[in-house]
Amino acid sequence: MYEEGSDIVTSTIKIGIIGYGNLGHGVEKAIQQNHDLELVAIFTRRSPQTIRSESNLLPISSIDAYKDRIDVMILCGASSKDLPEQGPLYAASFNTVDSFDLHSRIPEYFIAVDKAAKKAGKLSLISIGWDPGLFSLARLLFASVLPEGKSYTFWGKGVSQGHSVAIRRIPGVKQAVQYTVPVPETVEVIRQGAHMELIPRDQHLRICYVVAEDSADTKSIEKTIKEMPGYFADYDTTVHFITEDEFESKHTGMPHGGFVIRSGTTGQAHQQQIEFRLALESNPEFTASVLVAYARAVFRLHQAGEIGARTIFDIPLGYLSPDSPSALRKALL
Amino acid sequence: MYEEGSDIVTSTIKIGIIGYGNLGHGVEKAIQQNHDLELVAIFTRRSPQTIRSESNLLPISSIDAYKDRIDVMILCGASSKDLPEQGPLYAASFNTVDSFDLHSRIPEYFIAVDKAAKKAGKLSLISIGWDPGLFSLARLLFASVLPEGKSYTFWGKGVSQGHSVAIRRIPGVKQAVQYTVPVPETVEVIRQGAHMELIPRDQHLRICYVVAEDSADTKSIEKTIKEMPGYFADYDTTVHFITEDEFESKHTGMPHGGFVIRSGTTGQAHQQQIEFRLALESNPEFTASVLVAYARAVFRLHQAGEIGARTIFDIPLGYLSPDSPSALRKALL
Repeated sequence: MYEEGSDIVTSTIKIGIIGYGNLGHGVEKAIQQNHDLELVAIFTRRSPQTIRSESNLLPISSIDAYKDRIDVMILCGASSKDLPEQGPLYAASFNTVDSFDLHSRIPEYFIAVDKAAKKAGKLSLISIGWDPGLFSLARLLFASVLPEGKSYTFWGKGVSQGHSVAIRRIPGVKQAVQYTVPVPETVEVIRQGAHMELIPRDQHLRICYVVAEDSADTKSIEKTIKEMPGYFADYDTTVHFITEDEFESKHTGMPHGGFVIRSGTTGQAHQQQIEFRLALESNPEFTASVLVAYARAVFRLHQAGEIGARTIFDIPLGYLSPDSPSALRKALL
Repeated sequence: MYEEGSDIVTSTIKIGIIGYGNLGHGVEKAIQQNHDLELVAIFTRRSPQTIRSESNLLPISSIDAYKDRIDVMILCGASSKDLPEQGPLYAASFNTVDSFDLHSRIPEYFIAVDKAAKKAGKLSLISIGWDPGLFSLARLLFASVLPEGKSYTFWGKGVSQGHSVAIRRIPGVKQAVQYTVPVPETVEVIRQGAHMELIPRDQHLRICYVVAEDSADTKSIEKTIKEMPGYFADYDTTVHFITEDEFESKHTGMPHGGFVIRSGTTGQAHQQQIEFRLALESNPEFTASVLVAYARAVFRLHQAGEIGARTIFDIPLGYLSPDSPSALRKALL
C-alpha cells in the first residue's frame, strides 16, 4: 500500500501453492485478484514440463530452496490422501493454509500440525474454505449470540464429487454427476422458525445424471445407485440417463452452495433468525478465494509473533482485508 | 465449566449494565440465557425505587464501589446523547462493550475510548450489535473473499425509531410507527447477481402507520410526512391512518432485520454470491444478545493482556462461545 506523504512502498506477500488440481488452479486465479499478494511458485508431483501453465511450475523436489522465499504456502492436496502427510510435513518449513475437510479427523490433524508448526516457529491455519470454514464460523457465531435455539446446515444445490465418483464406479456407467439439493418443503418449514429433528431423507435430495454405455442395463444401474449404502440408500434419489453430449454441455461445472440457519428465542419468546447463504458457480474457485484471504491473515499474524496451528475460529476477520484497521473502521463498520 | 476429573469450578463472568431502557432490559434477559455470566448490578440515572426490576438496580452515583466487582460493563445508553461522554468515562474504570451506532462518528469515538482504556489498562469494545456489528463483519468478510464484486446492505422489514419519532413530532399526530422495507423488485434483481448503483428510492420503501388526533387534517399530515427532507422525501412513502386500538394491537413491537449480500466473480467470470440475513422479532433483544456474547470475549481478551479500544473486526469468533477451543474444533468446525 502506498500512503500519501510516505516514501515507503510495502512489498507483496509471497505465496506458494502445493498441488495443481482444481483447487490449486483456483488459488492461482484468486491471487491475481489480490494486488498485495504475489504467486512465487506452484509445486507439483507431476512432471512440470507436461503441464501447461503461465505460472512458475516446479517439481515438489525443489521445494527446500524456497524456504526463505515464500511467506505462506497454500496446500491444495486432497484431504484423504495428501494432507494428513503434507500438513505436518510442510508446517515444519513454511507458514501454511489448508482446506482439510474430513470433519471427524480435524482434532487429530490439528494436533499433528500444531506440533510441527510450533517446533518450527511457523503458523499453520487448517480447515479453511466454506465447510469446514465459513459455515463453521456461522455455526459458532449463531450459537453464541442465540444460545437458546437450533442450527441447521443445508448443502446445495451442488455437485458432490464423492457421490459422482461412486456412481462412475458402477459397471456400465461412462460418466455421471450427482447434485445434492435441499428438500424444498423442509427448507420452507425451517425458515418459518420450526425446530425439528431431521433425518438425512428429510433434508437433502440426491439427483443423478448418468451417461450409460450403449450395452448397459439402465434399470440395473438405477437400482444399484438407489440402494448404495452410505451414499444413496438413506435419501430420495432420482436418476436421469442422458446422452454424452448433454452431459458435456450441461453438467461439467462445479456449482455448490447452501446455507446455515438458526432460529432461536430471546426474552419473552421473541423469535430471532440468522442465516448465512452461499450460491457458487464454482466451488473450487470460491474455496480458493477463501484460502487466499486467510493466507494474508496468516502472514500478518505470524509477523505479530503467533506460531502453532489455528482454525478459522482463532482469526480476527480484520486480518483478511488488505486495508488498515482505521480504513476498515471508517468504511465498513 | 466443570471438567471431568477436575475439582476446579470456574467462577462466572461478572457483568454490569449502565442504562435501563429497551437495550438494558434486553441485556438483562440475555445474561439469563448464558450460564457462565452473572448480572451483578444495573446502574441508572433515574431513581431506582421508582422502577420495577428483579435485578440489583442502583443509582449511577454508586458505580465507583463496583470497580473491582464487575468484569465487563455493558453500556446501554443512547449513541447520540449518552455514549460520547459515557464511553471514554467508563472505559477509564471498567472493561466495556457498547453499541455506538453513529457510523460517521465511529473513528473519533474509537480514538477517545482507546485513549481512556489504554491509560486505565482496560479493554473496550465499541459499536457492537448488528449494524454496526454483525453486518459490518459480513461486509468485511465478503469484500475480502470476493475482491471483485459489489456489496449491498438492505434493512427491514423493521421499525426505524428515528423515522417514527420524526412523524410523532408533527402536530395532530398522536402515535406513529415507520417500517423500512426493502424494495422487492430491487432485491430480486440483486439476488440474480446484478451490479447496480442504487439511489435511496430504489432500495427501500417507507411505510407509516399513524394515529391522528380527532380534529387533525390527515391530508396535511400525509403531505408533511412525504415531503420531510432527510427522512422521507427521497423515498416512496406510504401513509396509513389507523385507530389507536389497531396501533396498540399490531404496531408496538420492535421487529427488524435485513441482509448484506455480495455478488462477485472468480476465475473465468464464475458468479459467486454470499448473503447474511437477519429476521428479528425484537431488535433490542437481539442487539443485547450480541453485546452479551461479545462481553464474554472482552473478559477473556483482557485476561490475556489486551488493552485499549477494539471493534468487531478485531475479535476472533472463538472467544464468543463458552466452549473450549478443542470442543469447538470437534463440534462445530
